[in-house]
Amino acid sequence: MTCASQTALVRMDSGFSQADAAFMARALRLAERGLYSTDPNPRVGCVLVRDGQVIGEGWHRQAGGPHAEIVALAAAGEAARGATAYVTLEPCCHQGRTPPCTDALIAAGVARVVAAMEDPNPRVSGAGLRRLAAAGITVQCGLLEGPAEALNPGFCRRMRGGRPWLRSKLAMSLDGRTALASGVSRWITGPDARRDGHRLRARSSAIVTGIGTVLADDPELTARLPEMAETIVQPARVVLDSRGRLPASARLAAVPGRVIVLGVAPARSVPGGVEFHTLPAGEDGRVDLPAALDWLGQAEFNEVLVEAGPTLNGALLRAGLVDEWVVYLAPVVLGDAGRGLFHLPALTRMADRHELSLRDVRQVGRDVRMVFRKG
Amino acid sequence: MTCASQTALVRMDSGFSQADAAFMARALRLAERGLYSTDPNPRVGCVLVRDGQVIGEGWHRQAGGPHAEIVALAAAGEAARGATAYVTLEPCCHQGRTPPCTDALIAAGVARVVAAMEDPNPRVSGAGLRRLAAAGITVQCGLLEGPAEALNPGFCRRMRGGRPWLRSKLAMSLDGRTALASGVSRWITGPDARRDGHRLRARSSAIVTGIGTVLADDPELTARLPEMAETIVQPARVVLDSRGRLPASARLAAVPGRVIVLGVAPARSVPGGVEFHTLPAGEDGRVDLPAALDWLGQAEFNEVLVEAGPTLNGALLRAGLVDEWVVYLAPVVLGDAGRGLFHLPALTRMADRHELSLRDVRQVGRDVRMVFRKG
Repeated sequence: MTCASQTALVRMDSGFSQADAAFMARALRLAERGLYSTDPNPRVGCVLVRDGQVIGEGWHRQAGGPHAEIVALAAAGEAARGATAYVTLEPCCHQGRTPPCTDALIAAGVARVVAAMEDPNPRVSGAGLRRLAAAGITVQCGLLEGPAEALNPGFCRRMRGGRPWLRSKLAMSLDGRTALASGVSRWITGPDARRDGHRLRARSSAIVTGIGTVLADDPELTARLPEMAETIVQPARVVLDSRGRLPASARLAAVPGRVIVLGVAPARSVPGGVEFHTLPAGEDGRVDLPAALDWLGQAEFNEVLVEAGPTLNGALLRAGLVDEWVVYLAPVVLGDAGRGLFHLPALTRMADRHELSLRDVRQVGRDVRMVFRKG
Repeated sequence: MTCASQTALVRMDSGFSQADAAFMARALRLAERGLYSTDPNPRVGCVLVRDGQVIGEGWHRQAGGPHAEIVALAAAGEAARGATAYVTLEPCCHQGRTPPCTDALIAAGVARVVAAMEDPNPRVSGAGLRRLAAAGITVQCGLLEGPAEALNPGFCRRMRGGRPWLRSKLAMSLDGRTALASGVSRWITGPDARRDGHRLRARSSAIVTGIGTVLADDPELTARLPEMAETIVQPARVVLDSRGRLPASARLAAVPGRVIVLGVAPARSVPGGVEFHTLPAGEDGRVDLPAALDWLGQAEFNEVLVEAGPTLNGALLRAGLVDEWVVYLAPVVLGDAGRGLFHLPALTRMADRHELSLRDVRQVGRDVRMVFRKG
């Protein structure tokens, strides 16, 4: 999984200089430019350096397009001979939609390759680094591995376990209410938090919601970031709709982009252009959630964002399927008649509560954003 | 209210040097040492400086004891002649439990006095600074006025409007629940947040709760900070008990310290040692909350901490009586069967929600602490 699984040919996460760290940090920033567009590929950046000078940079923009290393090598040209390549992910050694990057690095005469992390893709998984080392290139791995992994939680999770990284977004009042008793929820959070929410959508391969939310709110579930309209690949919209209730008039089916309905029985009818897939039912007769996650992984979705109501969030919490909860808290009070976040059976003992762990907290505009992961 | 109301004799918040700011910051840190003990007086610190050297320091420890200026002058002795005094609050010019500090500063031959803020006490309110200026002392006011005011929110509020600074503490799960459906609430937050809550108690003149909380949880409501046991003056415990239900066995009446019951009819009986006061009833037949605040102000309580359930917090929120909400959020989920923070009539329009503003957010141990004030 990590560089620790490398052969002895590859030096581990030691012996890196300050300059090495600075160039890798630059490569990570380049990789981030692909945050909204590389699906189903990972975000990757590359910096080529000779004599302490950057001679070429690259990042992977979209599947089917050139990898970060190829872009950087093209920018450097002949200057790449004898250079060091800093890459945020181990270079690929297999023929995919594009030729192996290892061959290109060897052919260009690169002298040293520093990778932030091994590629979790089982078709690579250290083989790329070994091929480079076998060609006489000095190879190191593990520099800024944590940030590199954090760039691609979905890709890494899917390569290792077949399922996407599941993130659920919640927006609530300070007293934990997501809507008035009537269901009205627009808007609890302020414009900065909502824009941040659109960034979460934009980096996701798919948005998952329940049919209840579609019937109540009729959302589009598109990523709306005007300043980035060109680079966003709109996420697929996925509706868990066990009983085939998605109306033909649903707004999310009317806007361009992929729409997928996951149900438990063959669909009677779905709106035009909407994909339908039948999955096993869980004990409650609804779509089996682990099966849905398996399906989303097979569909090559890396990061999946849940935007749903208390029923689906409660079920996902109980099943322990959510990797990350992103909670926006607005400085407003709706009172105890408002709707809650999680529909759960009543607890009888405090020890039975669901424990998470806080990973980040910050102010976003007038609101607070908190990130929690499994405890 | 502020230094802007000063006479022309007193220079305003300009012309301060970096050294001035550093010495005043030191005086503020000294004042903080009185955080748990000066009631009903304000926390005040004083630094005496000559030729750039600190020649005396002082802080006010407790009512009836010497003021900060007197302690600093005693430490400096003859060296005070020609010195600059940095004080976090305008020196008093009236005979209280101790003689006027202005006279002591004049007698000691201090050449310059820099005050962070004017004393909001109507018996001082600029008169102290004017007396010093009339004696030929160079007087300046307004250096680090914001932090100085923040040291004494209760004293300032009471001097200006007769009521204490009302702070309500809430401890909740991330889904906004304060207890299980059964009422069990121990413990939602972790030890660091609970210790922080005891610091809130320790700096308060009184803790206010409702009889419902006493009957349900039977709390002591004492400030338990072992490392500071010597300096804490235990806050009074105040129970809003309209129908005279406080049991003789209540734990808060059994531990040492002042216990006060506020009711609407003459008490039938209260546990031994407990004070009882009759207040007007509000429209709902319960203790009128503005009248209770007036009473708490007349009792010379500066900062008052509410630790109550959803009924009292809902009523206080609707009446707009709380100055500051301190909310601890634990990374745990209790589910929608748990108890909420605020019992309020159901809202029919999002526009009718209660708006607050976020003043601070930070991590405390494994939990998050947020501070909100009126919007």
